[in-house]
Amino acid sequence: MAKGKVSPELIEQFKQIVGEKYVYTDKDKLEPYSHDEVTDPHYMKEPQVVVLPATTEEVSKVVKLCYENDTVMVPRAAGTGLAAGAVATFGGVIISIERMNKILEIDKDNMVCVSEAGVTTSVLQEAVQKEGLFYGGDPCSGDSCFISGNVATNAGGNRAVKYGVTRDQVMGMEVVTPTGEVVTLGGKFRKNATGYMLMHLFIGSEGTLGIITKVYLKLVALPKYQQDLLVVFDNLDDAIALTPKVMNAGITPVCVEFMDNASIKQVEIFLDEKLPKSDVGNYIIIQIAGDNEDVLMDQCEKIVELAEENNAIDSLVADPAVIWKSRKAYLEADRARSLVFSMEDIVVPMTEIPGAVQQISRLSEKYNVAMHCAGHCGDGNVHIDILKDDRTQEEWEEMLPKIQGEIYALVYQLGGRLSGEHGIGYKREALLEKYTDPVELKMMKAVKKALDPKNIMNPGKVVSINDEVPVEE
Amino acid sequence: MAKGKVSPELIEQFKQIVGEKYVYTDKDKLEPYSHDEVTDPHYMKEPQVVVLPATTEEVSKVVKLCYENDTVMVPRAAGTGLAAGAVATFGGVIISIERMNKILEIDKDNMVCVSEAGVTTSVLQEAVQKEGLFYGGDPCSGDSCFISGNVATNAGGNRAVKYGVTRDQVMGMEVVTPTGEVVTLGGKFRKNATGYMLMHLFIGSEGTLGIITKVYLKLVALPKYQQDLLVVFDNLDDAIALTPKVMNAGITPVCVEFMDNASIKQVEIFLDEKLPKSDVGNYIIIQIAGDNEDVLMDQCEKIVELAEENNAIDSLVADPAVIWKSRKAYLEADRARSLVFSMEDIVVPMTEIPGAVQQISRLSEKYNVAMHCAGHCGDGNVHIDILKDDRTQEEWEEMLPKIQGEIYALVYQLGGRLSGEHGIGYKREALLEKYTDPVELKMMKAVKKALDPKNIMNPGKVVSINDEVPVEE
Repeated sequence: MAKGKVSPELIEQFKQIVGEKYVYTDKDKLEPYSHDEVTDPHYMKEPQVVVLPATTEEVSKVVKLCYENDTVMVPRAAGTGLAAGAVATFGGVIISIERMNKILEIDKDNMVCVSEAGVTTSVLQEAVQKEGLFYGGDPCSGDSCFISGNVATNAGGNRAVKYGVTRDQVMGMEVVTPTGEVVTLGGKFRKNATGYMLMHLFIGSEGTLGIITKVYLKLVALPKYQQDLLVVFDNLDDAIALTPKVMNAGITPVCVEFMDNASIKQVEIFLDEKLPKSDVGNYIIIQIAGDNEDVLMDQCEKIVELAEENNAIDSLVADPAVIWKSRKAYLEADRARSLVFSMEDIVVPMTEIPGAVQQISRLSEKYNVAMHCAGHCGDGNVHIDILKDDRTQEEWEEMLPKIQGEIYALVYQLGGRLSGEHGIGYKREALLEKYTDPVELKMMKAVKKALDPKNIMNPGKVVSINDEVPVEE
Repeated sequence: MAKGKVSPELIEQFKQIVGEKYVYTDKDKLEPYSHDEVTDPHYMKEPQVVVLPATTEEVSKVVKLCYENDTVMVPRAAGTGLAAGAVATFGGVIISIERMNKILEIDKDNMVCVSEAGVTTSVLQEAVQKEGLFYGGDPCSGDSCFISGNVATNAGGNRAVKYGVTRDQVMGMEVVTPTGEVVTLGGKFRKNATGYMLMHLFIGSEGTLGIITKVYLKLVALPKYQQDLLVVFDNLDDAIALTPKVMNAGITPVCVEFMDNASIKQVEIFLDEKLPKSDVGNYIIIQIAGDNEDVLMDQCEKIVELAEENNAIDSLVADPAVIWKSRKAYLEADRARSLVFSMEDIVVPMTEIPGAVQQISRLSEKYNVAMHCAGHCGDGNVHIDILKDDRTQEEWEEMLPKIQGEIYALVYQLGGRLSGEHGIGYKREALLEKYTDPVELKMMKAVKKALDPKNIMNPGKVVSINDEVPVEE
């Protein structure tokens, strides 16, 4: 039986591996590790101990010890997740890779970046940019998240329309398995048909199959020019329908974002300034990039033309700071209004977004709760902020599952899924259990059991197995 | 224990499911199913029975019967594989999906094609092209292979530099599991972080985890213009080094192919015509595509300029038929010279190609055997044709493993892998066992055991488990 309680002897042994100062057991040092970016206290839990190894070898030794002692491990990157995946929900030791923060190599000829797990995404982006190259992954939390966390959660973000999600950037990884063994999957090569692609199983497995200690990332040439457009529609159907028209016209935007009118009005209050057509507007924000300025201007004109054909009420080609201001403030605006809120992260076929958003609007009225939609409409990924406002925690915990239930029933009916990019973690584990096809769920559990038979690597996250939770006492 | 022998009762039950005429047991009907495109008789085996279901439901019923009777199944698409993956090596029933040949939907707005498993790749390519869209996958056997075979083997091909391999085109799939259950993984949405990505595990699993019955494929806009270049180098290092220079310059070619001098000379004999600079030349063939003719011409000029800087001895911008003639004849030229040959399919970091090819040239001298190299240098994937010529089958079977041993030792030393796109099948199963990191191999076997515990779904291919082969009598 997996143990959530870490023995004093084990803590002493951790100190011998990583050094006394890199094993945290003091309350003040533990607090930052008790949550990720989920603001709901329901998903917080102070860990008993945090271990900070500096090398893969140290990670391996720590994991081996835990394995031998049937002790639960929770791998943790920067803790910027939105699914309570890196929280010690069922006790155990948090293994933080934050000290493994070196970019090991930028190989210009093979166009590969090799990096330790704990490098901040924006640091990596800037380092490769200095070499005239470009890393396509771009989660919104890029300034604080770590690259291995991006890989472990298959982080999405804005640029996925053109460059794909994190999965599409990964060429290889070094992993420490639940038994403490070290293995490199993939590498500096771009094609691979050599057996099962375990690397792709680890991408997005949220630390439940092993600990990612090193990544090999695909680089591309840095595009020379960029252009940003804001297009406003008074009808959401028209707004969303612009995307396939643009893409069918041979333009692959870097990103296509949208914000519904409720979100825009909330941002207006937060920023305390008038936003364009905020009375009735739904925003579409498009970024295009390339090496030829004339081509880019032609594409801009084409997009504006298609927008007008599609009943846009305003189009603005301007400074990115102006264009992106409202979209970037979306999350903060909601958090400022209600610290506790649930950020849903559904994904549906692109053309089903209007239907989903309209239904959400009806749910907002039905439950008399503020629900704001924004997201990545180039890939059908809709974020819905459900705000607690001044409800009691009790009322909130009673209401939220009902709303989620209605949302997810709709999403699956539209051919979508629970999460487009934030993942399952602990927050959505029960939802995954409920809404996933039983055959798929059974296979997921079989894979988890096969690769972590003791159920000690981040148990109770993504999928629960063995019908048991670890024992803490 | 899995049974390789199919009982007469089971054959009768198959007939009741799919109809008498779609269960083949006659020798003349079985012959085409006794091999794939591997020409070595060592890898051929006449099956006892072939079943041809017309629907997913029929596939499911057939599989359930086999599961209940512990009987080995071998899923088969068009049989154009190069690893003896779809051959009934250990007996059992071949389940061919060739009758499931309908394109179900071309969804222009979501830019997705939904297709049954048995649609020929080129048929699908043409159908979406008629709608002004483009399917990026393009294995060399496109005119004969089936789309589900592409997915099952993660087929590569020429266009992978720009569009990626088959994996990068797949948005979803319907699968019949080894127990006969039906499940849809993924769908018409472009982001997904909802649990383990089993879809990516099935891609490239070569029919060892289940039978793919339906696929959801990503479409992009059809590019308007295309340009093909042939660049000739007398030095292979210079030839290969052109690729990163082109890509670093912000040009993403559709493909970058290469042929070594030995291959060119062989093709010259086959075509019975003089090829450019065939006395000393190594060829690089580049295709670029886009929507703006001027930009394309600028890119052409830039490539020629970079080629000259890199000591090219000739550059030719011409009709694709002229440019591609030699590369397309590579395989046929070798087959015409020696029907039996081994086509290796290594992958290494792009910059290691010259080192690999030079070493192969030395092996060719050492063993006094013809070895011709060509392949996809934009992604480090090198095909090496080792020709049997007039050796006896005995001499050949003695020599080949020695050469392969030397090649693979080198490939792994260079940070590469056994197979870039042809897969493991039965042909490379022992090699995978030998060269794969033991930790990775153990995980692959654990996954196979978890998803096919009876070891009845294409056993003995990719990875062997249970230390047993199915019993045929």
